[in-house]
Formats: sequence, C-alpha cells, structure tokens
Amino acid sequence: MNTTDRDLVITRDIAASPDKLFRCWTEPELMKRWFTPRPWTTTHAEVDLRVGGSNLVVMRGPDGTEFPNRGVYLEIVPNRRLVVTDAYVSAWEPSEKPFMTLIVTFDDLRDGTTRYTARARHWNVEDREAHEKMGFHEGWGTCAAQLAEMAATL
Amino acid sequence: MNTTDRDLVITRDIAASPDKLFRCWTEPELMKRWFTPRPWTTTHAEVDLRVGGSNLVVMRGPDGTEFPNRGVYLEIVPNRRLVVTDAYVSAWEPSEKPFMTLIVTFDDLRDGTTRYTARARHWNVEDREAHEKMGFHEGWGTCAAQLAEMAATL
Repeated sequence: MNTTDRDLVITRDIAASPDKLFRCWTEPELMKRWFTPRPWTTTHAEVDLRVGGSNLVVMRGPDGTEFPNRGVYLEIVPNRRLVVTDAYVSAWEPSEKPFMTLIVTFDDLRDGTTRYTARARHWNVEDREAHEKMGFHEGWGTCAAQLAEMAATL
Repeated sequence: MNTTDRDLVITRDIAASPDKLFRCWTEPELMKRWFTPRPWTTTHAEVDLRVGGSNLVVMRGPDGTEFPNRGVYLEIVPNRRLVVTDAYVSAWEPSEKPFMTLIVTFDDLRDGTTRYTARARHWNVEDREAHEKMGFHEGWGTCAAQLAEMAATL
C-alpha cells in the first residue's frame, strides 16, 4: 500500500516567518484564535510541547456541542516541524481509535514567506477517504487562511 | 475503556543488572540469541536506537517461514525503559495495522537482580484477546527465560 494513498496534504505560502507560524501552532492562547474553521471556535487548548507530551484542543460547533481532540507529540523541531498523533492520548496510552498522524512543516522561503505544509497521514485508505469527505481540504484551507491572518498580527 | 483491559503484562525478577538486560534488548547480535521462543529463531535484527528510529526483527518458524516485525522507538531511557510500537514502520509512516505498543522496563532491585516487565498495550480489547490466544504469556515467558540465560553469559 502506497503511503500517499493514505495521506491528505495542504500547502500554502504564508507571509510570515517560520517562528511566528510555529508559535501559532504551539501557544494555546494563539491556537484558540485560529485553529478551528469559523463559525466553529476553539474553546480550550493545552500543550505540553515535548516528545511524548500531550495536547488537547476543544472545538465548539455553532450549536454549542464541544469536541475534545487529544494527541501526543512524536517529534518537535522548533520553528521547522511538528509531528503529533491521535493514536495516543498520553505517553503511551492508546486512544480509542488511531485515526491520523499530522506532520506540519514550516519551510523558510527566504523572501519573508514560509511554505506551510500540513500532512494528515492515515492508517488506511478508508480513513483517508472519510477525512476527505469530512471536508479536509476546505476546513484546513480555511484554517490556513486564519493562521496567516493571525501570524500577520504578531 | 480501562487501559488495563487492553494490556498484557509479563514480569520476571532476573539475576542480572539492568544494563545487561538493556543490552540484550538493543544489540542485534544479542537479540538474535534470545528474542524468539525456541524452536523459532531470530534470523535478522536491526536497531536504530533513537526516538523515531526503526527496528526490524525477522522471526523464522520451524517450517522455515519468515515473519518480519517492524517498529519504531517512541521512548528510550538507557538501562531503564524502552517503548516501541508497530503502529509505524519508520518515522512516521503508518504500518498496515497498529497492533500494540510495547513498554519494557528494567527496575534495579539493588540485590543483583532486576525486575523485568514487558507490557503489550493494544488499541482495543479484541486485539488484546487475540494476542492472549496467540500465546502471549507462554511465548513471552519462554523468551524471558531465554533472556535470563543470555544475560547470565555477559
């Protein structure tokens, strides 16, 4: 099975430095301002930024229903790269369902912009397809625009 | 779901120091001599001992059939603790099936013996039950005896 059959990817060149985008991805107070596509909101964010550390992001839908998302960091390269998976809720307690591993990279294009890439890697083609149908490209596209907007204020 | 419903554990007090048991677990030439319950053999072992590093252990059954097992290290505390999962085949390529996370600890009992604990943590109760029926306790018990025998020669 080809890995790319199981991946969903979004890439954007954003007019901000890698360190600003990295801050937006890892500081709870910033995450709450862009992480969920509006009109959804991010009501809570916790980050333990170390390999094996957990994160928790609570998203709230327009009807007020809250959706907690937990994950564990697998790799952290400051200002360059983050890897987090929902296969664990803490080090190393398995989640109910290993759905994806998210690999986020910030490549400095040396012209004041950063190539931002978020790759969601699933364990099987069915989960990738389900994620695509849930609106991955639209949702992550909206979030990337919100991220760019947020970073421009830093 | 209680995590312990998804775990299988074996513990043995072994007359060897933690560093010797850690070597047996991480040096390919030593692994090949104890890692598979006889009459099975370990025909090949590769270890990239770092967080995100891969390992590969090839087991051969009595009829000559070979079974490659791949995993990725999630946590390494020299002479104390190893965490490896088959959810990835490399950093961070998902495997075909996330089956278990293995947490191995070596606790120095300060009397020349080490409490050796191998905990196989599964993503669901069904996989834990299947692993138990495959003979987890018997197989890992035999391996622990082989490990103790091996460590005694170091």
